[in-house]
Amino acid sequence: MKLASIDNQTRDGQLVVVNKELTKAIKVPHISETLQQALDNWSETEPKLKEVYTSLNANQLESAFNFSEVKVIAPIPRAFHWADGSAYVTHVELVRKARNAELPESFWTDPLMYMGASDAFIGANDPIEIEKEEWGIDFESEVVVFTDDVPAGVNAETALSHIKLISIINDVSLRNLIPNELSKQFGFYQSKPWTSFAPVVVTPDELTEDWKDGKLHLPLYSTLNGTVIGAPNAGVDMTFNFGQLVAHAAKTRSLMAGTVIGSGTVANQGSPNGSSCLAEVRCLEIIKEGKASTPFMKYGDRIEIEMKDKEGQTIFGKINQVVTEYQP
Amino acid sequence: MKLASIDNQTRDGQLVVVNKELTKAIKVPHISETLQQALDNWSETEPKLKEVYTSLNANQLESAFNFSEVKVIAPIPRAFHWADGSAYVTHVELVRKARNAELPESFWTDPLMYMGASDAFIGANDPIEIEKEEWGIDFESEVVVFTDDVPAGVNAETALSHIKLISIINDVSLRNLIPNELSKQFGFYQSKPWTSFAPVVVTPDELTEDWKDGKLHLPLYSTLNGTVIGAPNAGVDMTFNFGQLVAHAAKTRSLMAGTVIGSGTVANQGSPNGSSCLAEVRCLEIIKEGKASTPFMKYGDRIEIEMKDKEGQTIFGKINQVVTEYQP
Repeated sequence: MKLASIDNQTRDGQLVVVNKELTKAIKVPHISETLQQALDNWSETEPKLKEVYTSLNANQLESAFNFSEVKVIAPIPRAFHWADGSAYVTHVELVRKARNAELPESFWTDPLMYMGASDAFIGANDPIEIEKEEWGIDFESEVVVFTDDVPAGVNAETALSHIKLISIINDVSLRNLIPNELSKQFGFYQSKPWTSFAPVVVTPDELTEDWKDGKLHLPLYSTLNGTVIGAPNAGVDMTFNFGQLVAHAAKTRSLMAGTVIGSGTVANQGSPNGSSCLAEVRCLEIIKEGKASTPFMKYGDRIEIEMKDKEGQTIFGKINQVVTEYQP
Repeated sequence: MKLASIDNQTRDGQLVVVNKELTKAIKVPHISETLQQALDNWSETEPKLKEVYTSLNANQLESAFNFSEVKVIAPIPRAFHWADGSAYVTHVELVRKARNAELPESFWTDPLMYMGASDAFIGANDPIEIEKEEWGIDFESEVVVFTDDVPAGVNAETALSHIKLISIINDVSLRNLIPNELSKQFGFYQSKPWTSFAPVVVTPDELTEDWKDGKLHLPLYSTLNGTVIGAPNAGVDMTFNFGQLVAHAAKTRSLMAGTVIGSGTVANQGSPNGSSCLAEVRCLEIIKEGKASTPFMKYGDRIEIEMKDKEGQTIFGKINQVVTEYQP
């Protein structure tokens, strides 16, 4: 099943069911007005939404409309919890190598995770608004999952059963603000502006055999100004699967329905298929050539992020954003 | 004006207006069902709620009920954004001194702030449920503010005008999980379990001259098992006022209505009136005696946190929690 939220001039948007090809959609106010409401009562709403999805795919719903003709916003424009792991430890290792820092051995067994701001997620086509170019604007292509209510102390295997929806995001980072924030040890804050989401979230069954072992086994394409920067496979070199990430997040407290947990920048060891952020490209340059030659993003740059299934069908729709100057 | 949320078996609870003495309350579904809804439309809802407050204080409302007879939950049981500063830099300096670490000069001008989990705030009388005593259970008594929508890039003075509600919290910390998390530089996560809120939030005007310069100028009492651990004045030695903290949080992105911003552990230089957490008590012992003798909290311990006005009237009601063992 595929779901999205469309702009209806409310803070949470209007939930719609989207067909497999992302061509048609339909409102479902009799089931749920918003995605948060649906997740709040998932065991009741999911079967009803799936019925609609089946009918929509069979072209049996007259009130369906063209999905391309509506303004899509983030599936959950404001969520109650957003935590992002760094599950591709090979990426962290590379970044450290570029600055001649050792990777602590514990990083292979104890996930890195930071709490992100969840109150203002933006849509797939919204501009990346940044006040200063010199903050070092970068994209980060990631996989995310949405959970239902997760009890504290859950184990990784049970945690997997709490994953209800999957999507991809652009976790925009301001690279030149990061060193100061990390040195304070309190995590990212100003270095993480608005995070953007793909148009559509899907249930795990929609991914068939590409979703297994708590990982999404498909390449994630990042294209900057028309050039593919990378397409690493999200199922490869993911040190911690999503069950482990959810369990890590829930170790000492429960997670409420609608919690979003991210994979961190998707990366494969040695970056044979490119990178999911410019920081990694620059680290590879530093290691190889002694200095970084690829600049961070500038106003006017366009980043596209997409994942397709083995038949070439876009799964979540495309993130397609242009960097613009923010005027306070 | 004073507001609270009571348990009505929904995730967000039911908004009630509470009288000044915290003896009477009244539901206001014709204005707003929940505090989040009220904050979403604050310019419209605030004057209507204030009218109810005036009538309630004048004993003119027949449908008012005894506030003590209902189960109070957190004013916002789930919020979209919760960020906690460390505005009392004197406290940070003391903690560093106890471990012979220098305080970076920048800490006096650049606020420390971490993102907290906002999806499961608990009520003033809820137990502090922790799976393992050896995680090092501590309370942290703080002041918090709630904002309306704050645009990115706001300055500190304008930020002050976005502060709509004020309260106190217990930002429970698991001290023995903190060193590992801070060493990873990604901020607190597992070391911060459920955060609890005082029963009542109040508008700034309710605090009259005790709310000025973006600070709350009254002592905050923390009482452990009947013994006052500290009553530092929250208006003293607060290096960054709430306007500065909100502006820091909004530097690169907007904050949505209902964002909660915390002061960090309230502390006065030299701790002449005691401390707002056991970690500070232990640091003082280490500096004076070479080792800490006060243990962290144990199952069965009771922590009470309260602030009274100059007439001795409780402002927010009392946080009154007992530590219990969590069974996963």
